[in-house]
Amino acid sequence: MAIDRIDVNVTSPGRNFVTVQVTTSDGLTGLGDATLNGRELAVASYLRDHVAPTLIGRDESQIESTWQYLYRSPYWRRGPVTMSAISAIDMALWDIAAKKAGEPLYKLLGGASRTGLLSYAHASGTTLERLNDAIRGYLEQGFQAVRIQAGVPGLEEIYGVHDASPGGKYEYEPAGRPASGGPLRPTEETWDTRAYLRHLPTVFAGVREEFGPEPRLLHDGHHRMSPIEAARLAKDIEPYDPFWLEDCTPGEDQAVLRLVRQHSVTPLAIGEVFNSVHDYQTLITERLIDYVRSSATHAGGITGLRQIMSFAAVYGIRSGFHGPTDVSPVGMAANLHLGLAIHNFGIQEYMPHSETTLSVFRTSYRFEGGLLHPGETPGLGVELDLEAAAAHEYQPAYLPVNRLRDGTVHDW
Amino acid sequence: MAIDRIDVNVTSPGRNFVTVQVTTSDGLTGLGDATLNGRELAVASYLRDHVAPTLIGRDESQIESTWQYLYRSPYWRRGPVTMSAISAIDMALWDIAAKKAGEPLYKLLGGASRTGLLSYAHASGTTLERLNDAIRGYLEQGFQAVRIQAGVPGLEEIYGVHDASPGGKYEYEPAGRPASGGPLRPTEETWDTRAYLRHLPTVFAGVREEFGPEPRLLHDGHHRMSPIEAARLAKDIEPYDPFWLEDCTPGEDQAVLRLVRQHSVTPLAIGEVFNSVHDYQTLITERLIDYVRSSATHAGGITGLRQIMSFAAVYGIRSGFHGPTDVSPVGMAANLHLGLAIHNFGIQEYMPHSETTLSVFRTSYRFEGGLLHPGETPGLGVELDLEAAAAHEYQPAYLPVNRLRDGTVHDW
Amino acid sequence: MAIDRIDVNVTSPGRNFVTVQVTTSDGLTGLGDATLNGRELAVASYLRDHVAPTLIGRDESQIESTWQYLYRSPYWRRGPVTMSAISAIDMALWDIAAKKAGEPLYKLLGGASRTGLLSYAHASGTTLERLNDAIRGYLEQGFQAVRIQAGVPGLEEIYGVHDASPGGKYEYEPAGRPASGGPLRPTEETWDTRAYLRHLPTVFAGVREEFGPEPRLLHDGHHRMSPIEAARLAKDIEPYDPFWLEDCTPGEDQAVLRLVRQHSVTPLAIGEVFNSVHDYQTLITERLIDYVRSSATHAGGITGLRQIMSFAAVYGIRSGFHGPTDVSPVGMAANLHLGLAIHNFGIQEYMPHSETTLSVFRTSYRFEGGLLHPGETPGLGVELDLEAAAAHEYQPAYLPVNRLRDGTVHDW
Amino acid sequence: MAIDRIDVNVTSPGRNFVTVQVTTSDGLTGLGDATLNGRELAVASYLRDHVAPTLIGRDESQIESTWQYLYRSPYWRRGPVTMSAISAIDMALWDIAAKKAGEPLYKLLGGASRTGLLSYAHASGTTLERLNDAIRGYLEQGFQAVRIQAGVPGLEEIYGVHDASPGGKYEYEPAGRPASGGPLRPTEETWDTRAYLRHLPTVFAGVREEFGPEPRLLHDGHHRMSPIEAARLAKDIEPYDPFWLEDCTPGEDQAVLRLVRQHSVTPLAIGEVFNSVHDYQTLITERLIDYVRSSATHAGGITGLRQIMSFAAVYGIRSGFHGPTDVSPVGMAANLHLGLAIHNFGIQEYMPHSETTLSVFRTSYRFEGGLLHPGETPGLGVELDLEAAAAHEYQPAYLPVNRLRDGTVHDW
Repeated sequence: MAIDRIDVNVTSPGRNFVTVQVTTSDGLTGLGDATLNGRELAVASYLRDHVAPTLIGRDESQIESTWQYLYRSPYWRRGPVTMSAISAIDMALWDIAAKKAGEPLYKLLGGASRTGLLSYAHASGTTLERLNDAIRGYLEQGFQAVRIQAGVPGLEEIYGVHDASPGGKYEYEPAGRPASGGPLRPTEETWDTRAYLRHLPTVFAGVREEFGPEPRLLHDGHHRMSPIEAARLAKDIEPYDPFWLEDCTPGEDQAVLRLVRQHSVTPLAIGEVFNSVHDYQTLITERLIDYVRSSATHAGGITGLRQIMSFAAVYGIRSGFHGPTDVSPVGMAANLHLGLAIHNFGIQEYMPHSETTLSVFRTSYRFEGGLLHPGETPGLGVELDLEAAAAHEYQPAYLPVNRLRDGTVHDW
Repeated sequence: MAIDRIDVNVTSPGRNFVTVQVTTSDGLTGLGDATLNGRELAVASYLRDHVAPTLIGRDESQIESTWQYLYRSPYWRRGPVTMSAISAIDMALWDIAAKKAGEPLYKLLGGASRTGLLSYAHASGTTLERLNDAIRGYLEQGFQAVRIQAGVPGLEEIYGVHDASPGGKYEYEPAGRPASGGPLRPTEETWDTRAYLRHLPTVFAGVREEFGPEPRLLHDGHHRMSPIEAARLAKDIEPYDPFWLEDCTPGEDQAVLRLVRQHSVTPLAIGEVFNSVHDYQTLITERLIDYVRSSATHAGGITGLRQIMSFAAVYGIRSGFHGPTDVSPVGMAANLHLGLAIHNFGIQEYMPHSETTLSVFRTSYRFEGGLLHPGETPGLGVELDLEAAAAHEYQPAYLPVNRLRDGTVHDW
Repeated sequence: MAIDRIDVNVTSPGRNFVTVQVTTSDGLTGLGDATLNGRELAVASYLRDHVAPTLIGRDESQIESTWQYLYRSPYWRRGPVTMSAISAIDMALWDIAAKKAGEPLYKLLGGASRTGLLSYAHASGTTLERLNDAIRGYLEQGFQAVRIQAGVPGLEEIYGVHDASPGGKYEYEPAGRPASGGPLRPTEETWDTRAYLRHLPTVFAGVREEFGPEPRLLHDGHHRMSPIEAARLAKDIEPYDPFWLEDCTPGEDQAVLRLVRQHSVTPLAIGEVFNSVHDYQTLITERLIDYVRSSATHAGGITGLRQIMSFAAVYGIRSGFHGPTDVSPVGMAANLHLGLAIHNFGIQEYMPHSETTLSVFRTSYRFEGGLLHPGETPGLGVELDLEAAAAHEYQPAYLPVNRLRDGTVHDW
Repeated sequence: MAIDRIDVNVTSPGRNFVTVQVTTSDGLTGLGDATLNGRELAVASYLRDHVAPTLIGRDESQIESTWQYLYRSPYWRRGPVTMSAISAIDMALWDIAAKKAGEPLYKLLGGASRTGLLSYAHASGTTLERLNDAIRGYLEQGFQAVRIQAGVPGLEEIYGVHDASPGGKYEYEPAGRPASGGPLRPTEETWDTRAYLRHLPTVFAGVREEFGPEPRLLHDGHHRMSPIEAARLAKDIEPYDPFWLEDCTPGEDQAVLRLVRQHSVTPLAIGEVFNSVHDYQTLITERLIDYVRSSATHAGGITGLRQIMSFAAVYGIRSGFHGPTDVSPVGMAANLHLGLAIHNFGIQEYMPHSETTLSVFRTSYRFEGGLLHPGETPGLGVELDLEAAAAHEYQPAYLPVNRLRDGTVHDW
């Protein structure tokens, strides 16, 4: 049995997704998520033009060797485009292996270590009141953990903050499609870190006052703080028992978090933008973080993410895998299978995909009682409806950009 | 004045090149090299699909701000594809700025710090005799430094080792085009580190015996050694006064070089595969290397590479910029302008482009008496002949892959 | 084109300034600020007697090489006198280069990264009420940030604390001219660190009570605290959200700030008295500071200060350039051009020069809406009116000296 | 009793010297050396214009307080110009204090710890033969230690290398007066580190072969090596039992010597260009050096240098004070008194002044049997003949500059 063909599918059912489908000589297929939000077509080219032709005819069971072949042989290693491409191939080969075994993937990864995966939802609101409404809605859905993001007085648009629609839908799509006829570029928002730093602790206070100590409260800093600003925020929200503070600073220089760490016991999470175990080497060996935020989609698939979690386990660090809508249902399934199997699972981000997305990707994973479960379908448990996919043509869409009030390009 | 259009040119005059051409509203043009050997089309897509539309209409003089916009705003940072794209835009904007000032670019970078750039050639041979012939040829051309790579008994093909053709041509093209009709994948070579470690010191001994102590001798390990193997090689060749040992280990874990460093005074160089200053942070602050091997093409253009060299200068570390044929003449010119201007220049790799390549890219830089000079033409001093370029269609080509005798995928 | 002559101008329009004027063989002129408050004539001698003669006839475009020549060749490196001299030559050569290119200097430094530079004013008062009056006055002028210095009960004169004059003028001149006929020496003030440490937090509290959380409040400790005293102050003012605590301890031993850092998240700034990147090496690599306080006038000109900021950028550390009246309008312009261009700008100190000073130095920079901008005049954008300058003869003037109550000479 | 006047004398009996003479109200005078080779007039201005007026009328016995006043009060600390000025005042006040006590200065510093100071001479030669002649001459004079510097094949002029004149005089004056009518700038030499590194070990071998293991052999690298080059040299000369390797790298970044240190047991000395204890802080606490190379003239006088040696004593590090002809007889006497008194004396550099110099400065120190002794005259034991001094007008003179073969400005 060998890899017979590799197709790269680009579809946009509500948002853009890049999916790899590997077909073996005896007709098995595996899916892999290669979606890199806002840079989708570069990954598609990387796969179509440079990866797919080199794998045809190879033994599809050599998953580790193929990973190393794609990682080491092209000379240029790492980076989001490269690693998203590797991730997709790796997921697809694991999907095939599990299908061949007739088992849900988690069984090939060591079997279930728990009954389901604690998940957190995205609650936000331009005001404390609206944020609390959103939190309430999620708690009613069974969520035991929510990420809270709030409007900041004086700032108009803030990434990740949306009021729920009247009908009670709290979902939003982070990547925006440029207005028809307008320039093909991200929208730009104005940011003011000082205003944010002053305001956020009051949000935590207000939420705790409303909901008491029980709900797990998470917050995402979107890499926008300087080291000392992050230290201040971590210290200021510490009294409100945050489950974690995520992405408080840009992550290229891992040593930054030493400064944050020394000033509070607020748990820290980072890693959405990381793509290899080396991005975590200092963070983990110096125990500067508590949760690993990568996803299988960007960190090298099952193989890459499993390596990171294996390393983290040595240091008592747990998972908190990335799971917003830009991780496709295929990538989400990969996260869930791995999360169910590893011992050092922590929490799973869960931002449900839209109906439109789910009409193209049919999933077997389920959410019940605040827990996610990958389901028992052999393989990853996700099917890509190629016909339905074809109806949704790629449309450029970008995460917004933010600048300081004086026009300086800001982190992220 | 603003950016009016951005064209991405893919041409293959002997080998593949990706070139960005930025045109301003008043008709000035700037060129940037975005060539990523073996992954060319992914970078072209990154630029065409995701970068170019976001820059149209922007002020072309805001080079730093544009760099930060491309680096910080897409959320996903670093990596070879992303950074090659940023490099090309940055070079093109500096090309325009210098043309507008009517000066060769180096004058905007602080002016000339020397009369020319010491360069090294690639000498190789399957046997010591043939290697020595190649060295002799380069010394006769005026080179004062040569990289020496040699065949290893028992190994057939080794990357970077080619015997000169009868007419005395020592050039070779590292990336191979797959045989017509064959699979579109890299060729595979067999590698044996122990054989190499045993043999290489005898090569150094033989070359020193032939040419005496004067010529600078460099060697490239192509990342193929384990840490302790690298320490052994550095120690074993130390008596032959190597100018540097390059890429002795894979570079993701910078701390690896601590082990190599503690055992010898053989100078170390690394960084072709790096693409940001953060890849060098431990290496530089702990002084684990002596030469920075990046090029403007992969390390973020003039802006990115200058930042690395400014950082390195604080620690007494010098440049040894990457300069084989997969850096296009545009990228080569960028390296030369920067190398002429910075104080901490060390040496420049120089593998001359073929006649065919130079018929498409017309350059003003020159090689005389062992030294390279960027020339005095305003800007980078390179012109892209679009008509000539159009005659050379893209052809897939890859660096070879190597495996151990048992089939294990090996570093690089 | 070559350096034809170098003139050193000493003038005292309200305060002393040393200015270098470099003239090229084709008549271009460039200005550089060499003012070292209280040690002006030593720098003038350094330039006139030892630097100027060695540069005549050299290529004025070789800015980096000239910097290195002046830094490395005299054997004795660094120090305020030496580096102020180098700073002035460097600024003048960059001024010429930008004039030759026909661009404001910032365009040669990477272009504008923002629309203007956030600036802070010096507010002070012997009492909280008078301090608040001064703050109010600056906020009305559009400042969004003020440095607050206040009288301490029991201490008579304190450097940097002056009540505004009745007409609402808040300016003061830090360096005092000795009384006519009196001894040519600095005045002496009495200092008491404990009184200061007890009082300052109440000042911060009082200012926040009056103006609320919005204004950025800075404070300058003038290097007068011991390490543990500094740690206490940083901790005690932390609740009032200081923008920074500046110069809390003497800076020769960079490791001092480790102690301060570990006890609070109060941002730290230091560096007015530093003159090379090496003064910052521990501070930056260990992230012990948040803002770089050097100026182009004392830190090696554009070349030297840019190197520091490039180094700081790797660690997420921002600028807070020195800008009181002892930085001449020429030096101020240099700070502004660099600050506009670099990505990691933070804030700019701004203490406007007197009318008298501005009648000698004609500037193109402007202050609007709390932001400074260097203007669009080619070069630095400052002209020195030699005739006007000649009317203001040098007069010895010194910063005051402080002693403890028992007469012990105290830091600074 | 108080300081009544301070005169700054500039004289050039064979070379330039700046000497401070402090006169007290009761007529005692003290001398201090403020000579900063090649920057003499800047120090003279610093003293005359900015220091002298501030000290008149002060109690001359408050040596420590005056030192702190000059160090801390001017705001701008450290650096060669500032510290040379402070050094001179400090020496003069100690000279007065000892004269007042009627004792040679060393008795106020703790008394004699030894009978005399082991000294080393400067031997050099363009060839090994001539170097050996010079060494032989010095050994015959009683020296037990010699610094050996040799010509390097292929290099014409090398700083510190001079053949003895036929009459057997081995002295030379490092600073050169520009040719009459020529430009007032340093001469420029060409340097080639590789040639030097290859050659020097053969020199050590040749000297040891001629003179056996007994003579102490020192070598000065003049800061010209990169870190890894210095490590190589220290390793290569280790078999020849060097007494020390001096100034192997530029010294601003003290951590450089970690790399050198880890590769050999060659003793290291550094510090001629240092001027404060902080320049040694890392070097001493990490025990990266074995000898302190400062002189009282540049390191803050008796007070400053004693502080450095007191710190060094804690770590078992010894003195090796700077003592070429640019330390005036006054500065030399200061070194000798301190060297006789401290416990951790190591060796004293001794390059005798010319007859002309000694006709202006009358000294009481003596050289006998390889040892120097400061003599028993009260005070420093040096008199300045003002009349003789007046006959020797200042003449610009500079240490040579060196450049690499490609024109790059090189370390020193």
